Amino acid sequence: MGRCIKVLAFFLAALLLPGELGAQGLFHGHHDRLVGTPDNPLQVGVGIKIDQITDVNQKAENYGAVVVLRLEWTDPTLAFDREAMGRDFRVFDPPAFVTHASNLDTVIPAFVIHNQQSNRWIHESAAALRYDGHVTFIEKSSLTLQAPHFNFVKFPFDTQEFHFEVASVFPSEFVRFYSLDAFSGLGDMLGEEEWILGNERLLASTTIGLSGRESDQVELVFTGTRHLTYYVIRIFLPMLVLITVGWALFFLDEYQKRIEIAGGNLLVFVAFNWAISADLPKLGYLTFLDFVLQCMFLMTGAIIVFNVALRRMKTSGRVGSAKMLDNYAIKWIYPLGYAAIVGYAIFAYLLDPGFMSP
Amino acid sequence: MGRCIKVLAFFLAALLLPGELGAQGLFHGHHDRLVGTPDNPLQVGVGIKIDQITDVNQKAENYGAVVVLRLEWTDPTLAFDREAMGRDFRVFDPPAFVTHASNLDTVIPAFVIHNQQSNRWIHESAAALRYDGHVTFIEKSSLTLQAPHFNFVKFPFDTQEFHFEVASVFPSEFVRFYSLDAFSGLGDMLGEEEWILGNERLLASTTIGLSGRESDQVELVFTGTRHLTYYVIRIFLPMLVLITVGWALFFLDEYQKRIEIAGGNLLVFVAFNWAISADLPKLGYLTFLDFVLQCMFLMTGAIIVFNVALRRMKTSGRVGSAKMLDNYAIKWIYPLGYAAIVGYAIFAYLLDPGFMSP
Amino acid sequence: MGRCIKVLAFFLAALLLPGELGAQGLFHGHHDRLVGTPDNPLQVGVGIKIDQITDVNQKAENYGAVVVLRLEWTDPTLAFDREAMGRDFRVFDPPAFVTHASNLDTVIPAFVIHNQQSNRWIHESAAALRYDGHVTFIEKSSLTLQAPHFNFVKFPFDTQEFHFEVASVFPSEFVRFYSLDAFSGLGDMLGEEEWILGNERLLASTTIGLSGRESDQVELVFTGTRHLTYYVIRIFLPMLVLITVGWALFFLDEYQKRIEIAGGNLLVFVAFNWAISADLPKLGYLTFLDFVLQCMFLMTGAIIVFNVALRRMKTSGRVGSAKMLDNYAIKWIYPLGYAAIVGYAIFAYLLDPGFMSP
Amino acid sequence: MGRCIKVLAFFLAALLLPGELGAQGLFHGHHDRLVGTPDNPLQVGVGIKIDQITDVNQKAENYGAVVVLRLEWTDPTLAFDREAMGRDFRVFDPPAFVTHASNLDTVIPAFVIHNQQSNRWIHESAAALRYDGHVTFIEKSSLTLQAPHFNFVKFPFDTQEFHFEVASVFPSEFVRFYSLDAFSGLGDMLGEEEWILGNERLLASTTIGLSGRESDQVELVFTGTRHLTYYVIRIFLPMLVLITVGWALFFLDEYQKRIEIAGGNLLVFVAFNWAISADLPKLGYLTFLDFVLQCMFLMTGAIIVFNVALRRMKTSGRVGSAKMLDNYAIKWIYPLGYAAIVGYAIFAYLLDPGFMSP
Amino acid sequence: MGRCIKVLAFFLAALLLPGELGAQGLFHGHHDRLVGTPDNPLQVGVGIKIDQITDVNQKAENYGAVVVLRLEWTDPTLAFDREAMGRDFRVFDPPAFVTHASNLDTVIPAFVIHNQQSNRWIHESAAALRYDGHVTFIEKSSLTLQAPHFNFVKFPFDTQEFHFEVASVFPSEFVRFYSLDAFSGLGDMLGEEEWILGNERLLASTTIGLSGRESDQVELVFTGTRHLTYYVIRIFLPMLVLITVGWALFFLDEYQKRIEIAGGNLLVFVAFNWAISADLPKLGYLTFLDFVLQCMFLMTGAIIVFNVALRRMKTSGRVGSAKMLDNYAIKWIYPLGYAAIVGYAIFAYLLDPGFMSP
Repeated sequence: MGRCIKVLAFFLAALLLPGELGAQGLFHGHHDRLVGTPDNPLQVGVGIKIDQITDVNQKAENYGAVVVLRLEWTDPTLAFDREAMGRDFRVFDPPAFVTHASNLDTVIPAFVIHNQQSNRWIHESAAALRYDGHVTFIEKSSLTLQAPHFNFVKFPFDTQEFHFEVASVFPSEFVRFYSLDAFSGLGDMLGEEEWILGNERLLASTTIGLSGRESDQVELVFTGTRHLTYYVIRIFLPMLVLITVGWALFFLDEYQKRIEIAGGNLLVFVAFNWAISADLPKLGYLTFLDFVLQCMFLMTGAIIVFNVALRRMKTSGRVGSAKMLDNYAIKWIYPLGYAAIVGYAIFAYLLDPGFMSP
Repeated sequence: MGRCIKVLAFFLAALLLPGELGAQGLFHGHHDRLVGTPDNPLQVGVGIKIDQITDVNQKAENYGAVVVLRLEWTDPTLAFDREAMGRDFRVFDPPAFVTHASNLDTVIPAFVIHNQQSNRWIHESAAALRYDGHVTFIEKSSLTLQAPHFNFVKFPFDTQEFHFEVASVFPSEFVRFYSLDAFSGLGDMLGEEEWILGNERLLASTTIGLSGRESDQVELVFTGTRHLTYYVIRIFLPMLVLITVGWALFFLDEYQKRIEIAGGNLLVFVAFNWAISADLPKLGYLTFLDFVLQCMFLMTGAIIVFNVALRRMKTSGRVGSAKMLDNYAIKWIYPLGYAAIVGYAIFAYLLDPGFMSP
Repeated sequence: MGRCIKVLAFFLAALLLPGELGAQGLFHGHHDRLVGTPDNPLQVGVGIKIDQITDVNQKAENYGAVVVLRLEWTDPTLAFDREAMGRDFRVFDPPAFVTHASNLDTVIPAFVIHNQQSNRWIHESAAALRYDGHVTFIEKSSLTLQAPHFNFVKFPFDTQEFHFEVASVFPSEFVRFYSLDAFSGLGDMLGEEEWILGNERLLASTTIGLSGRESDQVELVFTGTRHLTYYVIRIFLPMLVLITVGWALFFLDEYQKRIEIAGGNLLVFVAFNWAISADLPKLGYLTFLDFVLQCMFLMTGAIIVFNVALRRMKTSGRVGSAKMLDNYAIKWIYPLGYAAIVGYAIFAYLLDPGFMSP
Repeated sequence: MGRCIKVLAFFLAALLLPGELGAQGLFHGHHDRLVGTPDNPLQVGVGIKIDQITDVNQKAENYGAVVVLRLEWTDPTLAFDREAMGRDFRVFDPPAFVTHASNLDTVIPAFVIHNQQSNRWIHESAAALRYDGHVTFIEKSSLTLQAPHFNFVKFPFDTQEFHFEVASVFPSEFVRFYSLDAFSGLGDMLGEEEWILGNERLLASTTIGLSGRESDQVELVFTGTRHLTYYVIRIFLPMLVLITVGWALFFLDEYQKRIEIAGGNLLVFVAFNWAISADLPKLGYLTFLDFVLQCMFLMTGAIIVFNVALRRMKTSGRVGSAKMLDNYAIKWIYPLGYAAIVGYAIFAYLLDPGFMSP
Repeated sequence: MGRCIKVLAFFLAALLLPGELGAQGLFHGHHDRLVGTPDNPLQVGVGIKIDQITDVNQKAENYGAVVVLRLEWTDPTLAFDREAMGRDFRVFDPPAFVTHASNLDTVIPAFVIHNQQSNRWIHESAAALRYDGHVTFIEKSSLTLQAPHFNFVKFPFDTQEFHFEVASVFPSEFVRFYSLDAFSGLGDMLGEEEWILGNERLLASTTIGLSGRESDQVELVFTGTRHLTYYVIRIFLPMLVLITVGWALFFLDEYQKRIEIAGGNLLVFVAFNWAISADLPKLGYLTFLDFVLQCMFLMTGAIIVFNVALRRMKTSGRVGSAKMLDNYAIKWIYPLGYAAIVGYAIFAYLLDPGFMSP
């Protein structure tokens, strides 16, 4: 496989060179109309088809994919005489094709996957050359890709963006990329259960390439939202039940018991806090869920202190005041407080009022 | 190994070409009766024998296998003179065979494992050529395969489907695949303890191949059900005992104690909830087990609230009503409620009434 | 390394062919007395020396090993003139040796490790050829091997069987394997702490090879039992102390307290239950330890129910009966019940009465 | 890929030789002005651009990166006649370039990444040669790098230093490295969420190279500080709330209850202690956080003993003294003690008074 | 990389041959004074420099290292004419060097790393040949090494021995190894935080090599002791505090409370027991820490039974006896018992009286 990767890179450095090159073009060719020159840049079609999503790793901010890449271009230099050859097509494995093209002094549109993070394990690859110089290169591989655009502010109601960026090694003046939409997109058996992926689109743009100059890039962008069942039944429902039960117990009128129960809830919140953090990186900001949990945690702490105060009032004889305060607390503050936390969190985090972003 | 993978791919792109190719066939050959053309597609027998199942990863929805693949076909172009050669058979390692066939301008029926997810580590591979042009290719390898058909609605009573899909790289008009049943199936030492695997069958079908056109495919399909002992002794039995003990304790007539016990059970349900979720992906639907646990969790919460109400009735003097309500709750609601949850879950999830599916 | 694996496989497919081959032998050779034919099968000595056990993975049912394989055979076709050559021996790296043998139209006794599960990382390999045609092939490598014979019924008092199976690629009529006992066995620095490994022996047998026909096989078989200290101090001793303490507490004559303590033990048993399951696959049967734990768990549940009944007897005035029943329970049922569980488990599981097996 | 690594190493050992070599230079060349000699050391520009940080592993003290390395030098020996060649540039894949340079008897400035820890997976690499002998070598790869400078004394307020060291294989008298600042630094999409990385700078220095002699080195150094949100909401806030609640409960005047609560906190501190240790290696010194936790743990233990003493005073009739001592403890010692711990820790650990270092 | 490993192995099997070889030497050479014969064994200097310790895995009993190996020898057969050649040195990548030496019919001192456990990832390697036949081979690589000498009896006060064994493939009569001390040892930036490594020394010895005969070996041996801070603050300090607090609570004179507290400690000991076991393999013997924990666990169990007995004495009217017994237990047995356990453990385990070893 190493060889195959190498092959693609074979021509990578052709333009890692000072600017004076620009004028005279890449080669002193004798051909009439060379491609891959500023006068006549090579037009390369790029298709990116993601067949499988093997993994979405939020913590490392990357994802794994099985992808089929397709590059197409026409280079008259590569044309051959079909009669003499006895056939219309010649098929090469990529290293042999590079050697062939190299002998003819022509350009191969080397690319690099801009956000590749791991090694690329190639399942299959091949290059087919038609008699008129039309080349089709195809490669199926599995690899891990960086996903630095992940933003967990609205977690677990967040929408994430995934990229697959194929950048040209040659600057834009020599090689141009255009999109092959017919051979791009997401497969229909991605095998990913946690995310609802879609909204895929192929974007053509330019970027600073390996050569340090502006180079063409085609990228497949798609977005993902989460199935929420998991978060509802593992986090929200348990929390709701525990809070409701905690509230019910406040009708028992025993300060001591309440304190114990609220103390227990405090520890449960700490446990939830840690359990949630195991799925995400150590962020520099609060997510929606963090915010809700922290506020509830603080409020539960405050409720304990409040009950301690009530109890002291009671033991110091002010039973009536304690009772009255207690009624307010039970009937209004406890449920409304929690509701207010959730309401504010929804407003500030999910409705995106524009004044909060990490 | 890279080389060997490459070899198979050598001819992969031959048909990654526009449609006008169809008429004149793949090559301008001088042979009388070329194989691998629409007039005379190459007939390739495919055998898939799974020797070992190394792992079933429910969370990533894939499984690992050690597999022996066998391809057989006859291509007169490859025939040789056994007398001149001094032997009936020539044996090649795959790259050498590709070179040999390539020099003779003939087709090698390249394939791709459609649901391959990891690199393929090849333990052994070889190609044998008989004097009459009959080729036998064999390859033993270990790899990870996508299993996107996993559906956990009936978990842990679910039946899952596993696929091993070998797809032709050439479109169907050039290469046809047929099943080699004698060399296919599951070995008898799979080394998999958790699943009962069986019901294997070899299916021939067509799919959209790498070339973007309809291509032949042979797939080994088999199904798996779980050994249930694990789930019985780790989940169902503990839950049954805890609920029974909880019920017995309700005969003690102390509301306070009951509340504590039910509160403890609440936390145990949360713990079970999380323990179960560690084995499955973060699904977008409830499994049978999730449903049972969630309902029991909610019911346990309701029981606490109910006991709080009883207690308030008692403290506010309505001891008789509390007692009467209590008897109903203990003797009927508690056991019948849990039974109803389980009964409904069995009906809705396992008997498959057809109105629930994710 | 890939190349080396390939080399061994070079001759793998030679017999992946219909049966009519049998009579005329593998090659139309001109040599007087060809080896590797049904008349004169090649006799190959096989030595398997396991240097290190890197890991025993019970859950995946495999183990890792560093192994030195040695194959020896004599093939007159490979003999050379020591005078002309100027030396007695020629040393090859395996690919070069395959090329050499291939040019002389002779057989190399390709093998496959039947229960290999991972890639094989080769540390060193070489082939030495003596002037009289005697070949010594040696290879040191690390790999993971399937261990499908694992059976955990008697866990943790189980004895497990490990295999290392080297199978011939050629059918038995062409290549015969015999054992090289002097170069086989287990090293004395295996580096495995958990298992006591031994009882190693080299067995020669036949199996259905890759070609689909009967092929020779040499396998190293050895067995392992566990060091029990771990299980004694992590499981049995804690359980014994907890049960003893639980029993002592029953002398306190407070039903309420007993219920709490037994309830705590119930949760401890659940925790042990899960902790143990983390080491083993999700089995379809009960192990010795599972059986003991489940019975104790059920009995502890029964004890709670029993105490609830006693308490109700007491509160409903039948103190005397309760006391009497209680004395029996404390003095006899509790300790004898646990002893009976353990006794029965030992009888049924460990003494192997022949009526229980998964 | 292996080949590519090899290529770079091709010339590695050239100077692994005794010192007498120095005088006559590396080669008996016929060229007028050889580079790579003590008279005329080869001047090599080195650029190190880190594109992605894939992982920071504090426990193993390493980090993963995707890096683009760039080496530039001019060697007249490599110059070619652009007219005869028909072009200004020749592009090589690295092994071909090594062969080319080797045929011309010239030096390639081999390098080794000094703190490389894993294999280096090369995504792309190439070498471009201009007609005047100017060479540009570029390589994009992913690898793991040792980070032995990590120092956790101020954890989690620590600032860590990361290095990426490219060392020459040839001693400094033959090959000199200088920095290519324009092609160095950190990318702007590192994909690292936990750390704030920056302050990058390229340093040129010398080190003892593989040859055992002083060799040039260029290293990219950068520093990282942590986002603190994670530590605030997972550790500091929960601890603050628990301590505050614990303090509030001391106003309830029940020694028994206090002891229970402090006992619970003791266990919570043990849990925090273990949870924190999971992120760091088993250090030989206390971090800031360890110090705070240990002191609080000890103080909580002392508070329990103090309350036991108070209770004994009370039961032995000295209620007044107990009450008075208690008031001091509640109002002053408890809060001030914790504050003092934190204050001292901040002073001793974070303000760096210079008398504490591991 | 595979190629490089292969290269070293190229000559591996040369002596995997029957004994009759001995007399006539390895080759029928025409050279006057061949090296690598029993008359004139090849003298090879071996240097082992460990640059980094990437990991010490106690559970698997291995460690990871980045190592620089250096081999030096002089073989007149390899000498060349520096004038004709035009230079003093020739530099080879190892496969090319093997080919070169092979053509000259001479021996390359192949080696194998005796306790290598994983694949060896080679970062760099090269061979330099001086005109007089002096060869310097150098290789930088990362790999995992078996550490079967680990002995945890004194854990965590244990001193462990690490080995790095380089064994000759040729028997001692052909190739002799001597130590290159100047190029050996441990680097000063090992990047290992948990262990204090040192006491390194290079030992020359003989071992049974791959050929089955006595072969030379050079090994780097070093020892490691643990930083104890981790164990003090995570285990010893928490245990000490918990025991002290438990002791203090015994002054409260309430048997019931004591039982609860001791019961809680029992569970804490079980948790510690499991937490410790996660770091070590499942040993067949007790470590120091195991011994202390188990004894304390048993003693805590005994204390509970003792308190139950006291309580029964009290309820059956013998308050005085109970009180007296109690005073002894509190003031003497509890603290002295724990001290005795620790004292005995220190004596038996750490002072190494010679009567205990696994």
